[in-house]
Amino acid sequence: MSWSSFYNTASRVFHEYPSWSKSVVVCTIISGGGLAAYSDSGDQRPRKKVVVLGTGWAGTSFVKSMKNSSYDIHVVSPRNYFAFTPLLPSVTCGTVEARSIIEPIRKISRKSGLDVQFSEAECYKIDSKNNKVYCRSSQDKKLGGVEEFSIDYDYLVIAMGARSNTFNTPGVEEHAYFLKEVEDAMRIRTKVINLFERASLPSVPMEEKKKLLSFVIVGGGPTGVEFAAELHDFVHEDLSKLYPSLIDHVKITLLEAGDHILNMFDKRITEFAEEKFKRDGIDVKLGSMVVKVGEKDISSKERESGQVVTMPHGMVVWSTGIGARPEILDFMKQLGQINRRALVTDEWLRVEGCDNIYALGDCATINQRRIMEDIAVIFNKADKDSSGMLDLKEFQNVVGDIIERYPQVDIYLKKNQMKEMATLLSKSQESPTTEVDIEYFKQALSKVDSQMKNLPATAQVAAQQGAYLADCFNRMELCEKYPEGPLRFRGTGRHQFHAFRYSHFGQFAPLGAEQTAAQLPGDWVSIGHSSQWLWYSVYVSKLVSWRTRALVVSDWGRRFVFGRDSSQL
Amino acid sequence: MSWSSFYNTASRVFHEYPSWSKSVVVCTIISGGGLAAYSDSGDQRPRKKVVVLGTGWAGTSFVKSMKNSSYDIHVVSPRNYFAFTPLLPSVTCGTVEARSIIEPIRKISRKSGLDVQFSEAECYKIDSKNNKVYCRSSQDKKLGGVEEFSIDYDYLVIAMGARSNTFNTPGVEEHAYFLKEVEDAMRIRTKVINLFERASLPSVPMEEKKKLLSFVIVGGGPTGVEFAAELHDFVHEDLSKLYPSLIDHVKITLLEAGDHILNMFDKRITEFAEEKFKRDGIDVKLGSMVVKVGEKDISSKERESGQVVTMPHGMVVWSTGIGARPEILDFMKQLGQINRRALVTDEWLRVEGCDNIYALGDCATINQRRIMEDIAVIFNKADKDSSGMLDLKEFQNVVGDIIERYPQVDIYLKKNQMKEMATLLSKSQESPTTEVDIEYFKQALSKVDSQMKNLPATAQVAAQQGAYLADCFNRMELCEKYPEGPLRFRGTGRHQFHAFRYSHFGQFAPLGAEQTAAQLPGDWVSIGHSSQWLWYSVYVSKLVSWRTRALVVSDWGRRFVFGRDSSQL
Repeated sequence: MSWSSFYNTASRVFHEYPSWSKSVVVCTIISGGGLAAYSDSGDQRPRKKVVVLGTGWAGTSFVKSMKNSSYDIHVVSPRNYFAFTPLLPSVTCGTVEARSIIEPIRKISRKSGLDVQFSEAECYKIDSKNNKVYCRSSQDKKLGGVEEFSIDYDYLVIAMGARSNTFNTPGVEEHAYFLKEVEDAMRIRTKVINLFERASLPSVPMEEKKKLLSFVIVGGGPTGVEFAAELHDFVHEDLSKLYPSLIDHVKITLLEAGDHILNMFDKRITEFAEEKFKRDGIDVKLGSMVVKVGEKDISSKERESGQVVTMPHGMVVWSTGIGARPEILDFMKQLGQINRRALVTDEWLRVEGCDNIYALGDCATINQRRIMEDIAVIFNKADKDSSGMLDLKEFQNVVGDIIERYPQVDIYLKKNQMKEMATLLSKSQESPTTEVDIEYFKQALSKVDSQMKNLPATAQVAAQQGAYLADCFNRMELCEKYPEGPLRFRGTGRHQFHAFRYSHFGQFAPLGAEQTAAQLPGDWVSIGHSSQWLWYSVYVSKLVSWRTRALVVSDWGRRFVFGRDSSQL
Repeated sequence: MSWSSFYNTASRVFHEYPSWSKSVVVCTIISGGGLAAYSDSGDQRPRKKVVVLGTGWAGTSFVKSMKNSSYDIHVVSPRNYFAFTPLLPSVTCGTVEARSIIEPIRKISRKSGLDVQFSEAECYKIDSKNNKVYCRSSQDKKLGGVEEFSIDYDYLVIAMGARSNTFNTPGVEEHAYFLKEVEDAMRIRTKVINLFERASLPSVPMEEKKKLLSFVIVGGGPTGVEFAAELHDFVHEDLSKLYPSLIDHVKITLLEAGDHILNMFDKRITEFAEEKFKRDGIDVKLGSMVVKVGEKDISSKERESGQVVTMPHGMVVWSTGIGARPEILDFMKQLGQINRRALVTDEWLRVEGCDNIYALGDCATINQRRIMEDIAVIFNKADKDSSGMLDLKEFQNVVGDIIERYPQVDIYLKKNQMKEMATLLSKSQESPTTEVDIEYFKQALSKVDSQMKNLPATAQVAAQQGAYLADCFNRMELCEKYPEGPLRFRGTGRHQFHAFRYSHFGQFAPLGAEQTAAQLPGDWVSIGHSSQWLWYSVYVSKLVSWRTRALVVSDWGRRFVFGRDSSQL
């Protein structure tokens, strides 16, 4: 056994079994000169540096789940806090305070017990050839010029999120309010009060009051719908007492380009929401695509009539979808990923074309493999005896790997109420058989790829991806030795890790007046009065810290007792 | 009795005894044609319009104390909320949240039950000749041009406060932070976190870190001292955990031009505070007058050496005193009040030279009359039998009026431990006498005017003035009929109202680490660990609403459990 192979063994042991390795060190110290040799070996294998870009759901979840102390972690983000974004619509109207839904990232990382460095800066360029990211302080220039620096990495975790998508609609950037960051929510809150104050001025004519108090929300997704509901409650529960003469002039309009609001939800929820909004006097315009946002009016094209309708507004909140950030687009260009909506990764969240770069959350999309593309190699791999026919035993040896590698198979089976894949094979045949050939195999699986779906751009997905990736990092060396992933159909051996698999825990949309619609996996739908509090408790249980939980609950209590604050701050 | 005099009598009755007047109306209705006549008389005597400028301590206290519903009240202020300013230093470091110390003025006025109108605007011009104020919306121009309007008034209450005084020191406006408004406190909070984040960046050299973390506070009054203490606590209790490598570089310097910090307090408190700051490592530089504030350094002239010393800073907080706002200066010019630090009023808070304009709080100063100026008329008025001599009975008839009109008499008596004014007269004489002549009277009172003092520019004074003035308005007609004030020495009869008299309830200065120094009337001094909570409860009991009280107490609870938040928001 040469020295170098001894080092390798020793240091592997050190990382896998720290308590053993300590005795190795102790032995080495006792044995004299070996000490220098061991610490030399430490220098030859320095700690790997993991750079994490972003402190949203994905980045924070990654940092929180890291347990392996053999990495140097450096987090870079323009925001030194994590924000519990599902409560952003509540912040817009002061139901919850902005500070209650955020948690300093330094506090979170300190709790992990690892050595995590944080820099408040934005990454403006990723240089994957030289394993470097370029960053710049996001603070104002007053502090003495823009601070720029670069960081080297061994592994890069990109979790920078996305930006609001304007679909290049003219005037949106200039005149509309977004609802993506905590600052956005605070800006909206100030603006709503400003509009009411302005409409109260004695010199403002009646017609102008009506214009000022016309609120238009673009996009009928959960965020837009929840904001409309919050605003309605704020106006009718709180502002109506303080600005009694103005309340009749308030108009809330929700523009949705599609056929229904909340179209990712069950039909029952959509209908309920649309009816509730109608009763509340919120004007929901379906099939209405915004073509221009002006300083004081907004134009949209009605699908049915084909006409462009223009209406005045005091404020437009834009909440239609997300797009890639410029830095991500730039990096995609470098990698040749053209015409993709986000950074493309494999099922292990590794950016395609890069060995040591991962991308999670809204800035990334997983490129799922079609089973039909690989059908031949799968068949060959499964056909161990190369007989050209797959028997049940051969098939059962690989079925788990197939389902892990191609999650659409599982979805297809569930959708068609089949318990296992063998049923799929046997069902497509008139008489039961024990062997199938490749043509038969192809045909049986031919419809499976139709079930391929992109993951939604939600906090749930991002958080699960962060935790998954941290788990991989935590067990990096162990899994190098004992790969746990599915069979490599195109290569030899197994993949190092299980592929990322998303577990959907349901989604819900608060509809105001303490009514919430919730959709759970397995077509369960819950709509009702009490469910707001049920779902608040879901929110709360998912909040990152006990501090945030307590603050949000106490904010709800404050609001319950004192109403929302309407000071212009 | 002519019709017109009947109207006058009737409507006076209406205002003084509303329930009587109702029966008058009922009688009139029953008697037929009289109805039209009565309502005509209503038009001839419309409700008086009171315009209040400002929603600080004075303005809010006035609105809150108004009970007489026979006025139309219109409040104009660029802030639609009242702020509990003594807690501003706590807001700078997140001990208390900004929203917890403010209360919408509409909520406050709604509780009064009166018809109060509010306009969020700033008054930029007072036209006392035409009884008009000119206002302008303080919102950004984006909302469609600057909104301007004028309001007519019958009575004007000016309570616009003051601005921070830079004493024309170069660079203060551009580079220093003030601590006067809620927004100032929030700005400071963001800046402190920004400095720590910036100093954490990997590219910032050690020397620069030290500069960034040099905090300089100018002014050793209660606000400056409390901010220094809060900042010290924030750094050492909270930030030290999140930025452990930076804490040794933090330096807090307090520059005071005078001989001592907290110089309006008792010597014992001053000494205690200076020693505590020394122990805490806060560098207190006495006799140090700032001559220039630069972007990155601050220069001050040391009184002892006469030299100008320059030191680097990351942030300067300027808290040296107050000056008149430009609109107030403009109005003072109109009135010919030149070279005064604030609007001059009489003891009834009426602006000198204006019958229907009152000024309260920091924007006003009461022009106290010297007793020596009036000594001859006082003597003549008191000398009822015009004998040229004042006997004890004659004197005792006017002594109450003298003391009310010239509060310095009372202060002089207390200071010299005399129980009553008669002692003053008898003391200055060798043998007791029952009569004094004018020369003797003059001599006895000659030192009294030395006790004349301007009221301090504090929240306590402003709040008492607001309540006092509202009380006068509430009883305006009653006191017109039955004047309650002191004898008019220069005219006939009595003044309509008692003069404003300030009751000092003591003042206190939190010194950090839950230590507070308090000075009560009568030379009582309390310094200690427990007193912070004692004084917090004083604060709390003076807060305007139960809502604010509850929020502040719950903020203290939050901080106690979770520490202060250090998110950069």
